[in-house]
Amino acid sequence: MKHTEISSIGEFGLIKRLMGDIKLKNDSSERGAGDDCAVLHYPDSQVLVTSDMLMEGVHFDLTYVPLPHLGYKAAVENISDICAMMGTPEQLIVDIAIGARFSIENVEDIYSGIRAACDRYHVDIVGGDTSTSLTGLAIAITCIGSARRDEIAYRSGAQENDLLCVTGNLGAAYMGLQLLEREKAVFEEQTAKAKTVESRLAIQQPDFAGHEYLLERQLKPEARYDIVQALRKAGIQPTAMIDISDGLSSEAMHIAKASNKGCRIYEERIPIDYQTSSLADDFGINPVTAALSGGEDYELLFTVPLKDYDKIREVEDVHVIGNITRPELGNTLVTRAGAEIELKAQGWNAFPDDKQ
Amino acid sequence: MKHTEISSIGEFGLIKRLMGDIKLKNDSSERGAGDDCAVLHYPDSQVLVTSDMLMEGVHFDLTYVPLPHLGYKAAVENISDICAMMGTPEQLIVDIAIGARFSIENVEDIYSGIRAACDRYHVDIVGGDTSTSLTGLAIAITCIGSARRDEIAYRSGAQENDLLCVTGNLGAAYMGLQLLEREKAVFEEQTAKAKTVESRLAIQQPDFAGHEYLLERQLKPEARYDIVQALRKAGIQPTAMIDISDGLSSEAMHIAKASNKGCRIYEERIPIDYQTSSLADDFGINPVTAALSGGEDYELLFTVPLKDYDKIREVEDVHVIGNITRPELGNTLVTRAGAEIELKAQGWNAFPDDKQ
Repeated sequence: MKHTEISSIGEFGLIKRLMGDIKLKNDSSERGAGDDCAVLHYPDSQVLVTSDMLMEGVHFDLTYVPLPHLGYKAAVENISDICAMMGTPEQLIVDIAIGARFSIENVEDIYSGIRAACDRYHVDIVGGDTSTSLTGLAIAITCIGSARRDEIAYRSGAQENDLLCVTGNLGAAYMGLQLLEREKAVFEEQTAKAKTVESRLAIQQPDFAGHEYLLERQLKPEARYDIVQALRKAGIQPTAMIDISDGLSSEAMHIAKASNKGCRIYEERIPIDYQTSSLADDFGINPVTAALSGGEDYELLFTVPLKDYDKIREVEDVHVIGNITRPELGNTLVTRAGAEIELKAQGWNAFPDDKQ
Repeated sequence: MKHTEISSIGEFGLIKRLMGDIKLKNDSSERGAGDDCAVLHYPDSQVLVTSDMLMEGVHFDLTYVPLPHLGYKAAVENISDICAMMGTPEQLIVDIAIGARFSIENVEDIYSGIRAACDRYHVDIVGGDTSTSLTGLAIAITCIGSARRDEIAYRSGAQENDLLCVTGNLGAAYMGLQLLEREKAVFEEQTAKAKTVESRLAIQQPDFAGHEYLLERQLKPEARYDIVQALRKAGIQPTAMIDISDGLSSEAMHIAKASNKGCRIYEERIPIDYQTSSLADDFGINPVTAALSGGEDYELLFTVPLKDYDKIREVEDVHVIGNITRPELGNTLVTRAGAEIELKAQGWNAFPDDKQ
């Protein structure tokens, strides 16, 4: 593969190469990259802003994450946060710091993923910063979107007896990660043992057959803007909403806490794909645990008034998994056997030694 | 100094500690941190957005940059970009990734600097992300501000015969950096040589006497929002504007190129503080070179129509250093001796091997 040193074209050359042919798609994007600031215009709605930073070795592992997928996922994570407020994603600002081992082609690969996500979600890249890292790769993305004030779904609006709903299915991204980690360990073990050329050539390639969906959920997640649109179309205004980045338990507890309520989730209603269940069995993991505590599904968790029950049943890919209760009742998982156990947040943690 | 492990309170505990008591100051800040997105409102103006990422070892050196200063400077760099469009800075979003060696107190130190800058410039911190870095410290800041469409100063609006103006003085931050680098080298050399306890105790502390202003310009720069206000008050609308982060040459050439014009700068008119000149002499550096090619002054460089000459003379701390010309005349420095030499950009480069 071609490896062109970034130093051969410089910072401004690189930015021009990455951003040069970008056409702005949204009316709210008045000016994109190329000046001290981007210029946006939101006269008729509130402006939603969210930002996340991804660090190599902490949030991603380049031994198995292809660079375009990394870019796509970094963009989608932020787009998902706009969706989680019932907003429309409109702009992205991309800061990337790269180590000396990276070529122009590598950076273009990351950008190709970011741009693919922007095309898919009709979002404009309007600026950012590209510079050197002495160590690992770092990506910080800010996403900007819009929503009218009465459309915005905060975490804090859930009411007693509201239905608790979730989109798609859960735990798949987590099982995809387990699979990638397992195959990486196998590969590294074989490589360490193989002393001759013959034995090196005989090293097995990772076997992902039958698990493609899980890999896609981990490596190329999607934001549920389709659900935002479907809810608007159905005339349903969620009372509270959040996206599932840290596992169902943790997110349900965020809504309950912010709304000063309790919640009740029925185990049998948690949507889990058969590939997730199947691989979880292989790993000796309870698939419900993967759904409750595995992260990165980027599905939406939201509450709607009980009166919307008939309407919400008609919205595709939405599952009612429980309800909101008085705060004194706490946060509960009702098992298939009918036992009630307390929900605990054990989602992904940005500080791995965390004792909470 | 107290060293509390971040793992003892976790990510959410840390965010609560950093952001818990923040009061929003601006009407445009409807909701701050605590949900998936911040919610802003800009019904009557355009929205300006800018973002920068700072990486340890590339953009800052923690051996001599105190953490509160790092936070202050990271915030000011972005606030300065809003000023450089003639905008009013209003919100900040802060992403920080920190290594395991950092304590809660360290992160609070960085935040104390960011918050000091936000207080000084009446800016709200409305969100962000705090996570782990396996390697160095990384800070990405997004700043959001406002300007009416007819107030915005792009780089591209300069007209032939416009006056080229600069604020404050130039080269001071660069000389401050040279001083810090020199004292660091002296300190490291002495430490390497000192084999006994006595000789270690005898190591000289850095001597910064007489250079305090230069250190302040390097470690605690300010954004020139005061100039934005003064220009508005004086009824002056700059035709083009940029902030000086990479040196006067580079920025003047940005304006000239974006406006498809040439520019002419008179060496004798470039404002240089006596501390800058004095230390440059000690180092054998031409102070004009420090002004032209040293970066991080965060002064404003802008153009105004010739008809505003009398008005601009009345604005404090603004210096007319040259004018805009036809593009065929190129970018020229007129020396004290009357010689005309071509301006070259040799400012700070994000990719150190850059051959441009």
